[in-house]
Amino acid sequence: MSTLYSYFRSSAAYRVRIALNLKGLDYETVPVHLVRDGGEQRKPAYRALNVNGLVPTFVDGGVNLHQSLAIIEYLEEMHPTPALLPADPMARAQVRALALDIAADIHPIDNLRVLRYLKHDLGVTDAQKDAWYVHWVVEGFTSLEARLAAQSSQGKFAVGDTPTLVDCCLVPQVYNANRFKVDMTPFPRIAAVNAHCLTLDAFRRAAPEAQPDAE
Amino acid sequence: MSTLYSYFRSSAAYRVRIALNLKGLDYETVPVHLVRDGGEQRKPAYRALNVNGLVPTFVDGGVNLHQSLAIIEYLEEMHPTPALLPADPMARAQVRALALDIAADIHPIDNLRVLRYLKHDLGVTDAQKDAWYVHWVVEGFTSLEARLAAQSSQGKFAVGDTPTLVDCCLVPQVYNANRFKVDMTPFPRIAAVNAHCLTLDAFRRAAPEAQPDAE
Repeated sequence: MSTLYSYFRSSAAYRVRIALNLKGLDYETVPVHLVRDGGEQRKPAYRALNVNGLVPTFVDGGVNLHQSLAIIEYLEEMHPTPALLPADPMARAQVRALALDIAADIHPIDNLRVLRYLKHDLGVTDAQKDAWYVHWVVEGFTSLEARLAAQSSQGKFAVGDTPTLVDCCLVPQVYNANRFKVDMTPFPRIAAVNAHCLTLDAFRRAAPEAQPDAE
Repeated sequence: MSTLYSYFRSSAAYRVRIALNLKGLDYETVPVHLVRDGGEQRKPAYRALNVNGLVPTFVDGGVNLHQSLAIIEYLEEMHPTPALLPADPMARAQVRALALDIAADIHPIDNLRVLRYLKHDLGVTDAQKDAWYVHWVVEGFTSLEARLAAQSSQGKFAVGDTPTLVDCCLVPQVYNANRFKVDMTPFPRIAAVNAHCLTLDAFRRAAPEAQPDAE
């Protein structure tokens, strides 16, 4: 059985939990507390496993992988069914691009370590920090909403009628948007996809509140 | 022939230029000036092509793709030789993860729009803005250097003796690090890989100064 080093609120770990569940793969969760005591992810014990000091890390026998999208691509190659990427190369590229719109263009800018730097090194106020968070979500969701709405056929999920890599990224980002009270009214398509995903057990079991380290 | 909407200094466009050159694919460059007149990428003409308002956009007949890593994965699937990803799934995951260490965990935080927000919305000084830039490069390069150095065999490129997706991301990030005068002394392996890549015509022709819109 594989092991996922995870934190209940980490978006990146949440993505991998969804993918593991969608593929029906059993795994053990080892919690890494990102906040307590300055962050367990920065301690030598965790750095020995993942030098970046970020979660998640996926360990399976001799396999040690970091970066959520790389882990999910690996799961896709090792366990192709059910597929999280379409078969057609252009459609695959579109799915990867929409996933990166979240995983590269929203999430890293709003990540915990960045918010910490804003507060501790630049001395911004909590209100400015929250505005920063919301700004990048709104900017990213505005173009994502336009892209989802512009698709020639609208499925139940972000792309089509089965879950893809996009949904693995979208649901955790909406969870975070809700935490920061982002008004989702301008993003009806994203909200509908999120709501549909959360009717599925694979997504519900991956949610922060369903994790062993939930607070 | 395909078209790449590019800006000479854009890291993300630079990655795709390297991949196109490594694969020997001809393409036309259409420059999108990211700074002049508030940024051509934010104008309706470009947004109609790429609603995110970011470069690059890759257009080839009916194909319109954004996100540099998704474009490169598409090129890899359509033109598998020379390969920019290893054949083994675990090795592929490692290459993708190292590429994301740069493309997700360094670059987005230091991107132009973020630096603009710091300056215009948070009113940070130029010195604070430069320190921000350097901080995320140093943090990212520190773990990347450790990962490259820890490999059981050291090749000429980041991973092995042929260029991969990692090199497509590494060279543009080092170029930016040099612009911001990051001290590369603690990163000898990254510097050596960069230097070796720049002996290749495919990398040299992709460089900012070799672009039609270079200033």
